[in-house]
This record gives sequence, structure tokens and C-alpha cells, in this order.
Amino acid sequence: MSKLKMGMVGGGTGSFIGDVHRKAASIDGMIELVCGAFSSSKEKSLISGKELGISNKRVYGNFEEMIIGETKLSEEERMDFVSIVTPNHMHFPPTKMALEHGFHVICDKPLSLTLDEAIELEKIVAASGKVFALTHNYTGYPMVKQAKTMITKGDLGTIRKINVHYLQGWLSTAVEKTGQKQAAWRVDPKRSGIGGALGDIGTHAENLVEYITGIQIETIAADLTAFGEGRSLDDDGNILLRFENGAKGVMSFSQIATGEENNLGIKIYGTKGSVEWYQENPNQLTVKWLDQPKQIYTPGGNGTYPESSEYVRIPAGHPEGYLEGFATIYRSFAKELMNIKSKKMISQDLDFPTVTDGIRGMKFIYAAVESSKNNASWTKI
Amino acid sequence: MSKLKMGMVGGGTGSFIGDVHRKAASIDGMIELVCGAFSSSKEKSLISGKELGISNKRVYGNFEEMIIGETKLSEEERMDFVSIVTPNHMHFPPTKMALEHGFHVICDKPLSLTLDEAIELEKIVAASGKVFALTHNYTGYPMVKQAKTMITKGDLGTIRKINVHYLQGWLSTAVEKTGQKQAAWRVDPKRSGIGGALGDIGTHAENLVEYITGIQIETIAADLTAFGEGRSLDDDGNILLRFENGAKGVMSFSQIATGEENNLGIKIYGTKGSVEWYQENPNQLTVKWLDQPKQIYTPGGNGTYPESSEYVRIPAGHPEGYLEGFATIYRSFAKELMNIKSKKMISQDLDFPTVTDGIRGMKFIYAAVESSKNNASWTKI
Amino acid sequence: MSKLKMGMVGGGTGSFIGDVHRKAASIDGMIELVCGAFSSSKEKSLISGKELGISNKRVYGNFEEMIIGETKLSEEERMDFVSIVTPNHMHFPPTKMALEHGFHVICDKPLSLTLDEAIELEKIVAASGKVFALTHNYTGYPMVKQAKTMITKGDLGTIRKINVHYLQGWLSTAVEKTGQKQAAWRVDPKRSGIGGALGDIGTHAENLVEYITGIQIETIAADLTAFGEGRSLDDDGNILLRFENGAKGVMSFSQIATGEENNLGIKIYGTKGSVEWYQENPNQLTVKWLDQPKQIYTPGGNGTYPESSEYVRIPAGHPEGYLEGFATIYRSFAKELMNIKSKKMISQDLDFPTVTDGIRGMKFIYAAVESSKNNASWTKI
Amino acid sequence: MSKLKMGMVGGGTGSFIGDVHRKAASIDGMIELVCGAFSSSKEKSLISGKELGISNKRVYGNFEEMIIGETKLSEEERMDFVSIVTPNHMHFPPTKMALEHGFHVICDKPLSLTLDEAIELEKIVAASGKVFALTHNYTGYPMVKQAKTMITKGDLGTIRKINVHYLQGWLSTAVEKTGQKQAAWRVDPKRSGIGGALGDIGTHAENLVEYITGIQIETIAADLTAFGEGRSLDDDGNILLRFENGAKGVMSFSQIATGEENNLGIKIYGTKGSVEWYQENPNQLTVKWLDQPKQIYTPGGNGTYPESSEYVRIPAGHPEGYLEGFATIYRSFAKELMNIKSKKMISQDLDFPTVTDGIRGMKFIYAAVESSKNNASWTKI
Repeated sequence: MSKLKMGMVGGGTGSFIGDVHRKAASIDGMIELVCGAFSSSKEKSLISGKELGISNKRVYGNFEEMIIGETKLSEEERMDFVSIVTPNHMHFPPTKMALEHGFHVICDKPLSLTLDEAIELEKIVAASGKVFALTHNYTGYPMVKQAKTMITKGDLGTIRKINVHYLQGWLSTAVEKTGQKQAAWRVDPKRSGIGGALGDIGTHAENLVEYITGIQIETIAADLTAFGEGRSLDDDGNILLRFENGAKGVMSFSQIATGEENNLGIKIYGTKGSVEWYQENPNQLTVKWLDQPKQIYTPGGNGTYPESSEYVRIPAGHPEGYLEGFATIYRSFAKELMNIKSKKMISQDLDFPTVTDGIRGMKFIYAAVESSKNNASWTKI
Repeated sequence: MSKLKMGMVGGGTGSFIGDVHRKAASIDGMIELVCGAFSSSKEKSLISGKELGISNKRVYGNFEEMIIGETKLSEEERMDFVSIVTPNHMHFPPTKMALEHGFHVICDKPLSLTLDEAIELEKIVAASGKVFALTHNYTGYPMVKQAKTMITKGDLGTIRKINVHYLQGWLSTAVEKTGQKQAAWRVDPKRSGIGGALGDIGTHAENLVEYITGIQIETIAADLTAFGEGRSLDDDGNILLRFENGAKGVMSFSQIATGEENNLGIKIYGTKGSVEWYQENPNQLTVKWLDQPKQIYTPGGNGTYPESSEYVRIPAGHPEGYLEGFATIYRSFAKELMNIKSKKMISQDLDFPTVTDGIRGMKFIYAAVESSKNNASWTKI
Repeated sequence: MSKLKMGMVGGGTGSFIGDVHRKAASIDGMIELVCGAFSSSKEKSLISGKELGISNKRVYGNFEEMIIGETKLSEEERMDFVSIVTPNHMHFPPTKMALEHGFHVICDKPLSLTLDEAIELEKIVAASGKVFALTHNYTGYPMVKQAKTMITKGDLGTIRKINVHYLQGWLSTAVEKTGQKQAAWRVDPKRSGIGGALGDIGTHAENLVEYITGIQIETIAADLTAFGEGRSLDDDGNILLRFENGAKGVMSFSQIATGEENNLGIKIYGTKGSVEWYQENPNQLTVKWLDQPKQIYTPGGNGTYPESSEYVRIPAGHPEGYLEGFATIYRSFAKELMNIKSKKMISQDLDFPTVTDGIRGMKFIYAAVESSKNNASWTKI
Repeated sequence: MSKLKMGMVGGGTGSFIGDVHRKAASIDGMIELVCGAFSSSKEKSLISGKELGISNKRVYGNFEEMIIGETKLSEEERMDFVSIVTPNHMHFPPTKMALEHGFHVICDKPLSLTLDEAIELEKIVAASGKVFALTHNYTGYPMVKQAKTMITKGDLGTIRKINVHYLQGWLSTAVEKTGQKQAAWRVDPKRSGIGGALGDIGTHAENLVEYITGIQIETIAADLTAFGEGRSLDDDGNILLRFENGAKGVMSFSQIATGEENNLGIKIYGTKGSVEWYQENPNQLTVKWLDQPKQIYTPGGNGTYPESSEYVRIPAGHPEGYLEGFATIYRSFAKELMNIKSKKMISQDLDFPTVTDGIRGMKFIYAAVESSKNNASWTKI
């Protein structure tokens, strides 16, 4: 089974998320990086390419060149898909062009800079007949899949209350003014879109809730704040949630929660039981029951469902982490591409976040910003 | 030093909170129970009295009899103060009468059935020259006092974000219909007032936030729900918080959070650091810093302030619990009464929750109910 | 039901353990302190008595005076039992005299200074017809009782492996030379006996193991060390354990484990499952199963046995601590005394540690010291 | 930078550790698998090769064929090193042959079947001028490196006490009789050597202790047991430890600790502070100080040393796991090989476990078995 060939847009040397995508793509041995437009500077792109062991002729000055250039190569040689790891404003253009030139795409979240782009993208994906994956990586954790499965099977009864938070502290001070690139584009509406922390991490929280429960958030009342001096985008938010099935909940996210690293956590309460999970200690899922003792599930451990344990790479008790969760998205995406190669058609149920999830995320961003402008009035997603 | 003499209203055999108050009053050896009107039935009251070792002549059929009866005894013999441990609707009448007859009062929360009663009570307390304490017991934990002290001293910088929750699951099913007395009065507006879970545990959360931070909640947007079939009072709530200093936050409480026991937790973020504390594991306070490793403080342990460690009864590493935190309220109340006995005047700063805290709590209940009726519109406390 | 009357030997102002015993005796409202010989100095004893609200005539200059003095009082007035809270060398004399004068005794651990005393004491207790309790307080925790009950009922199968540790750091430096009284007597063989940390905390570990499992340690190989300069008694020890049923295990204790507060922990493995418990977080018992998910039990929580939950004072989720565990010993002792008052005979099964446990502890100390002298050779207890 | 080419011995389809090695080798994008003798059956080897995307001509029937075959290829094409992932008895032969044919080797632990082999191997490595790495993977965790660095720098003062455990429960029942291959060879002395759990996990514990502290274990008193019916090798052990610097400690390992998954944990106490780390939650290191509050360090988090944080792949708060720790061994090994390619000589200090560590491990096994045979008498390593 030969490996799938990946081209990358963005992710040059020093990029946090580019490196994550590359490692995630590598772990399961199904994908190899063959080309890239790693930077908007051809020179920098070449340096990155060299470090990554990519021959110069497969290093491109920009994504347009890459897509055109690869198209000219033999089917055997050219990339199978494009991985897009640029800031938000550079998600739409390369995605659109890649799909229209017959390449599958896997793209970092959020889906796009604007909701309009997102809606257009949905049509482009549909028309292309190609696969599009969005890296809401937290859905790749085995314990997240265990929670989802327990809810799907009805183990927890009817879901009534959902609390989720995503708390970081890295923007507690004005790091964007210190030359920190990661911070700089995130606080810049031109590159981030209308959401700050909302788009960066709030969308992860939104996606996680809807992924695990299978229930959509219907309306929200959002109170967004930019605590950092001079910031035009939110760096903190608190949101009341009402779900389509009558459940209620609350979301809180922040990038000024001093001392927090990557504290994504969720508690979901049903009529029969509840689940609790934290990303910083991802290898345990706490399940609290109406009338039985609390249980702790571990990846591949006693009592886990196959729907969860099939995503575990190593025996129970050996912790898996962020990269493995991320890799699961890539692996499922790769399996689908290989499936298409042999069966010539896309599966009905895709086992990774898609453009549909991306649109939910963008609508969530837009609803939250609108609600917040209207003093946290209830707004439909 | 002879012990202070306590009379009790409510708290007959089988009462949860009456027993808690008695144990809390006993621990530090400063208080003895001398009389009581333990039940609205004289017969039951006598049975409770016998079990508690109270002579029949000091067991009364109701609080009026007790207050009148005790007044007739010699100063040496009669009770020094009344402890009121009845359901909410029976807080105001005995408190008023006791104060007006010259007895100090310590009363369970919330302060009263209605806000009007609360406001009247404030005047009665002021006029009486007596001491009134409200048992917001969670403020008695040493780690809560450590958090408060750190914030007061500015260790955490300016407070910007506060998340608090109080989650229980004991009303997940209709236990009030099974003869469970604790549940029955809590879901009954005539005995509970206009707040359900809101009054029972939401007020604890509100009090904890304002106690630790010293910052008042200014406006709230509350979404209250009665999930339990046939319930007229809320059993769940989510509230957006805006504080007087510009901080933002969120509160979530529930009595239908299946599987939760008594999960009260709080996270407070300042510009320099943050604190995190959970009632079910009360002997550790997590402090996260902007640029130092996370710390764990323990009662009386390394680095704790005297303002916290003076409330610790045993060497570090020996856990204290709920009863000790509760006992701290009683001990501070008792010290004040002894102080008054010798100095003949009330202290300026009382080291326990007072009628002022009680009024805040009642205003919070009223604001939350009003906000919720108006679809979670912002409402001033 | 009138309270039992307690006299105390030792435990004057500033004593750690005396205060603990008094608070533990108070919590459940069954016992009142009526007299004491709180210090070897009459003057200091009077000061302590005053602070404790004991009238001068019931404050004695030494335990002999107290025992004689109380004997002269009317049955109604005189103490029912003596609580002995002195350093180890002062356990035997007052215990012997009290029992021989018809008083029940509750005594701090270890039982005595020497094994000879312990063996003599067993006979004295038997001859006296009085009740003797030893405060191995950790057996009073509800989760310890849950573990014991699970093992008794066979839930864990045959026990095969037991690891226990008790780690403190308070003697990491030479605090005994700084005037710290607690440290001074503990490192002094004349007052402590032949065991240092071994007697002080190793015996707690030994008692906990045998209490929970109901299996006796048969032989041990002990490696004791005095790390502190100039210390003649051990401040650290590691011991291989072999149990009567073929189980194996290891014990590690230390008072030079820098940074540890009161880290007593135990793991017990059977053929079907295992239990794990830590004293610093005593309100959870972790149970790991052969083929089911790990469970967390809490006092009074779902799935706990009545044999455990009957020792819980407050609803699940409200933490109990060290004092409550200690109080459970006092309460069971008090119940037995009341039972004797009405039935005139001692129960077969006493629900608290007795002289038998005390002898086990002393034999353990002697075996460990002998083994260590012989370079950790196997020694029978 | 072109990738290093890896050949693999063992690790066919369904192998646990082979897959781990492949994933670990992939993560950092420095290594590609080019050939293998994945099974002792050529047919099975071909199937594995196909799944792994290796061309048939690079799939060999046994390690001899592979080593010979690869030697014949051009320098550009042939493998750079061999990864050996077979059961213990098959470590020595391929290692010896590979080294003698000019290939570097990375091998799973323990080093060999017998101590004699180990000693011979040391000479072979020295004579070969090639690099040999042993995958004691737990040394790759960033928090392990943080602990090591803190001790090296003297932050904890003089080390006095070390407790380590490695507890698993997967051999609690006779799984070796159910066709479970992993179990079958581990309980078979012909394939495992003289140590059972001792060799499989005890050596990890031994290596971890000596790696972190830099202090050698001098003598041990070991009590090994085979609880499983019919087992000739130990499945459980408890060992008293004495270190070269006077420190004392205890080790406990087991594969019959029912319910445990992969509970490797260590506590190290110095005169100034202590560290505590658990493999199942590897992203936190607890540091307890003599006179400061306890701290929690996280990979790349506040206060970590560069000697630790350079091994972190992703920002603080994103958990890394077992595969990343394992990958760190491969990455350091790969860096050394690349360094040799350019500098033509081996570094003085190798940043991964070497044959020296392997010999320590084998000596530890032999000393423990001897001690245990002599009823846990003290035995020199």
C-alpha cells in the first residue's frame, strides 16, 4: 500500500500548526509530504522545504503555483491532497482552487474568514466531488469518541445540561506587540475574521459539544469582551446556550485566563448519567451515574466501546496525546482517500469533520458576534 | 471560660441541616445546646430533645414559647443565642422575635422567604443591638480564606474573569414525590420562596464569589429552568455575570446534574494569576501564575497567609471538611459574643456572613428570577 | 441521654494531639470533658483547665491525683473514662492505674513504651472488665471501612499484593533542636521507645493494612535509617512484607520525605480487583476491576455498603476529614460505654482498635527493629 | 535533509511493540522504513511488508538475509540502521550481526537474554564503531527530563529516599494459556530470560531511577514471586534498594496487580525538595518543597528548564504521550546518525540509553534473581 502524497500550504519553519499537521500526518505511516508552498516568500519556502527533505522543484512560491505545478505532474507523482495550515484569511482561496483543480483538501479551522466564503465553499465542495476535511482535532480523542458513543446509545438518557469551557492565558498580556506572530494574526480582524478567541477556540468548544451530543445549539446569548488594551477582537466570552432538544448550557472561553494553558473541558448531563472530560488529561473520561458509583474510562480500557477503542494505537495505560488525536483526523481522511481510489466514490458517512461542521462554526461565530453587539440578546445560529 | 448557651429552632431528629449545625457548634468546645423547639410538634420536639440530652423543661413546642420561656430564666441559665435551622419560610419570624427579645441569632441561608422580609430584617438587626450571623458555611474553608487574602493583597492583579458552578444531581428524578422531606420543601414556593436551586445553592455560589473577590456582581442575565416535571421552581440555571469593576463571568448551578454530589467550584482570573478551588476536595487551592509554575496550597501548608492558617485546626496534611468549615462560622460568631460579653459592644468588622450578605443573596434571587422572566435580559442586582 | 464524662491525661495548651482528641470527642455530642491532668505542672494544668472551661477543683496536678480524686466523687459526677494523650512513655502508667480503679480508657497510639508493658497491659485490661480503646484513627474513615467491607465480602477475590506508605517531611531538618516539642520527644528513645518514625507512623500503616484486609503480616525484612544527624531512632524505613495468606507487599514510611505533609496511602490487589486510598484526599476510594471500568466511591455515595455509610455524618459530596475519622473512634467507644451502662456487659465485637491491635503494633515495632539490626533479615512479628 | 533509512527485525502485523517503534520513528519525519524481516515466516513477513508499503524485494525471510541483502545495495539505497523489536532471546543475534556488518542498531529492552550476551555485546558495540541505542522509552518524557535536570542542578539537595513502582494487571489471570502471544513469550524463560515481570518492567523502573537521579543502585534485597499457577518466572516483585550515595528506597513491580494498566510512578526525596511523576499522566511533574508551596510543572510550561523543554513538540497544555516519549529516543538516535554522517565520529555524550544502560539492566535482573533465591539477602548489582 503506497502512501498518500500530501502538498502543504503554509506551515513554514517556526509555524506551530504546520508542524503539528506534519507530525499528525506522519504518525500512522499512510501519508508522505511531497511538496509545499510553505511561505509567501519563495526564499523562506525553499528553506523550509530543505529542512523537510522536499526537493527544490516541489517547493513553490505560492499556492497557485503549487496547484498548477502539481497538476502538470504524472498522476503517480503528483500530490493527492492539499493540507492548508495558513491563518484564517488564507483558508478559502487555496481550498477553492485546490478543489476546483481536482485535489482533495484538509484544512485547519475555522473554515474561512467570512460566513459568505463558508457558504460558497460548501457549494464548491459539493460540485468538486472531492473530499474536504476540517481539523477539529479534539474530536479525534478516544475518550471523546467514547462519550459520543455512550450518548448515541442512550446510556446517559436524555441530555439536559451542557457546560463547556476553553480557557487559555497566553494573551493575558499584549504579546501581539512583542513580535509574536501567532498572536499578531489572531488579534487582527483582517486575518482572523470577526471572531478573536471566539473563532480560535470558541469554535472548537462549539464543535466538541455538537460532535459529542449530536444535538445542535439553537440560540445563544453571548457576552464577548476584548480585555486586552487596543484589541478590536474579543479575547474572552461567556455564552448562554439553548439546544434544539430543550437542553440548556453555558460556554466560557478566554485567552486572558491567566495561567491556563489549554484547558478545554466539557460536562454533559443526561437523565441517567453524565460525562466529564478535560483535554489536558485526555486519557480519562469520568462518567457519573444516577445510582451507581462514578466510573473512570481509559482509552482501550475496560468497558470502552469498539467505536472508541478502534481509535486507540497502544495498549491501555500508555497515554496518547494531542498529536495522536490530530493524527486520527488525518488517518480517517487518508482511509477515505484510499477508499475512493479503489471504490471510485465518496462514502456516505465521513469519519471526520467536514464542510458542514465548518459552516456550523462560522454561523456560530456570526451569531455570537451579533448577539454580543445586541447586549447578549438571544440569537439564532 | 464557660460555654455559650444555644437554643435551636428546627433541626429535629432526621433533619440534615440541624445535625450539621449542632456538630459544627460542638467542635470547638465553645458552645453547648441548652434548649430547643426542634419541631412544630411538641411531641416530636420532646423526642428530639431526649436524644440530644436536653431536659424536658427546656424543650418547647414552638419558637414563641421558647423565646418567652427562656427570657424568664436567670441570665446565667438562659440561652445566649438562637440557632435557626428551619426551611426558608420560617427564618424571618423566629429571627425577628429572638432579636427583639434580646437574643443573638445565627440562621441558615437564604436570609428569608422574601426580599421584603430581608430588608425589614436588616432594620431589626440594626435596632436590636444584637449579632446576626448567616451560615454561608463555604466561606469558612481555609483555602477559601487563602484565595480571598491573595486577592485582597493584590497577588493576582486586577480580576477580569470569574466562573463559578454549584452542581448537584439529587433532584434529577422526582424525589419530592417519594416522601423525601428535604426535597419536598425545596420545590415548594411557599416554603422556599421564589428561587428553587437558585435560592438553595445559587446563593451560595453568589456569596462565595463576592466573599472571595470582594467585588460585587452588578448585573446578570439569567436563564432558569425547571426540568423536573410539575416543578414550579427552577432546578437549574445559567447566568451571565458582569461585575462592578468590569470583570465578566458565568455562573451555572443545577440540582438535576445527574451524578453530581456537591460540586461547588470556582475559578478566578486576574492579570497576574488565578485561583481554582473545589468544595469536594477543599484542602487544596490551585494557583496558576502568569510566568511561574502552578502551585498547590494546602491548609496550614507552606506559603499560606496567616489570614488563612489561623482557621486551620490541625497540622497540614490532615484534611478538614465540611463540618469544620461550618464550625468556623460558629466559632467566629461565638468569639464575637464572648467579646461582647466582656467589652459590651459589637465589633466593627464581623468575621462571618451577616444580614448584609443575606440581603445581597435575596436581591440576587430576585434579580435572577426577573431576568429569567424577561428571557435572560440584563438585570441589576 | 446524658453525655459521657471524660477525664484527660496530657493535652495541655499547645498540644497538637490533645486538642484533636477533645474536638473528636465533641463532634457527636455524646461526650463532655469534665476533668483533667493536662500537664505535669499543676500551674500549667490549671491554665489549660481554665481555657477549656473546667472548674479548678477538677483540674489535677498529675494523673494519680486525678484518678484518686475522681474515685471519691459520686458516680453521677465522676468521670466515666480517661483519655490519655501523652507521649508514649506515659501511656502505660495512667492506663494501668485508671483501669485498676474502674475507669474505661481510650489511649493514643502506640500502645506503650515497651513490648513488655504492652503484654502486661493486655492482662490488666482483661482483668479489669473495663473497655480499652486505642486511637488508630485512620480506621475511622468511611472509605477505609468501605475497602474493608469489600474485601470481607470477597469482592476483590484473594488478596495477593499490598503496598502501603506513610510519608511525612517534617523531620527533614533538625527541628528537634529548635525547641519544637512535638519533634523533641519523638526522637528521644526514653519517651518514644525503640521506634522513631516506625512507632509514630509505621504502626499506623501496619494497623491500616491489617484492619482493611483482615490478614496478618507474618514476617518482615526491614531497613530502618536515621538520616537526621545525631538521631538514634529511625526517621525512615522500607520494609518487605509477607502475609499469613501468602500475599506479599512493601511498606515505606518516612519523616524526612521532604515536602510531604501526611501522605498515608495504600494499594491492595486481589485476584478480582483492587482498592487504592489516600488519607490526604480521604473522601474517595478508587476501585480497579479485572474487567470493568475503574470506579470511584465516595462516603455515602452510590454503591457504598451500609458497613461504610453508617459512619458518614453528612450527605455525599460534603467532605469529612481527619477529625471526623478520629471522632468515629470516640463515638464507637462512647456507644460501647453506653451499651455497658444499660446491659452491664462488654460486647463481643468492639468497633474500634483495642489492646489486641496495640500489641500487634508493638510486636511490629520490635520485629522491625530486630530485622533492621540483622541487616534486614526476615523476622517474625 | 533526506531521511534515514530503517530496516526492522520483527514487528510483523499484530505486534504491539513493532507498531510502536514504527510510529515513534515516523513522528518527527527524520526516518523512513525501507526494509524488514518482520516475521520468522517469509510469507507472513511479505504480508506485513505489503501493509507497510515496503516493496517485496526489501522484505526478507529472516534477519540474516536482510543484513546480507542490504549490504549488497548501494550506500544510497541501503538501510542506515536496524531496529530490533523481537522477544528478548532474539535481541543478541541480529544486533551482533548488524553491528558487525556496519549497521547502527536500535533495540528494544532488555538488552539480551543473558548477562553473558550483554557483556559480549558491549565489546561488539565498542569494536564496531557503530551506534547502539536501547529503547528505555520512559526517559524520553519531558517531565522525566525536567526531574533529572532539577536533580543535576542540585535543586532538590542531596537525594535520600527513592520509591518507584511499575504496576500492571494484565497477567492477573492465565492469559498466556489463551493464545495471547504477548503473554506467551513473556512467561517463557527461553524467550524472556531469567526475569519475568522483573525483566519486562522492573528494568524500566531501575533505568528510570538511575536516569533521573544519576545515582546507581548498589545493593538490593529482592522478594520475587510467581503468583500465576504454573509460572516459572516472577510476575511480581518487591525490592529494598540501597544506593551508592547512601540513599535508600524501595521498588515494587507487578503484572498481577489487578486493574492496573501501566502504572509506572516514582517519588524522589532530597534534602531540599522532592519530585513525583506518574507515567499514566505524564504531562505533570509534582515538586514539593521544604518551605514553599507544592508546584506542578508541565511540558514547556512556566519554569521548565531548557534541558526539558527542548524535547517538547507542541505548546504547553497540549498533552504528549507514550509515542512522543518513545519518538524522542528515535529522534536523538537519528540526530546522532546524521551527526556521524557529517562529522564522521560518534559524540561523547549520547542523548539516549546505550549498551551501558543495557548492562546495568541485565546486572539488575541477575542480582534480583540471586537475591530472591537467597531469601531476599542483600546482593550487589
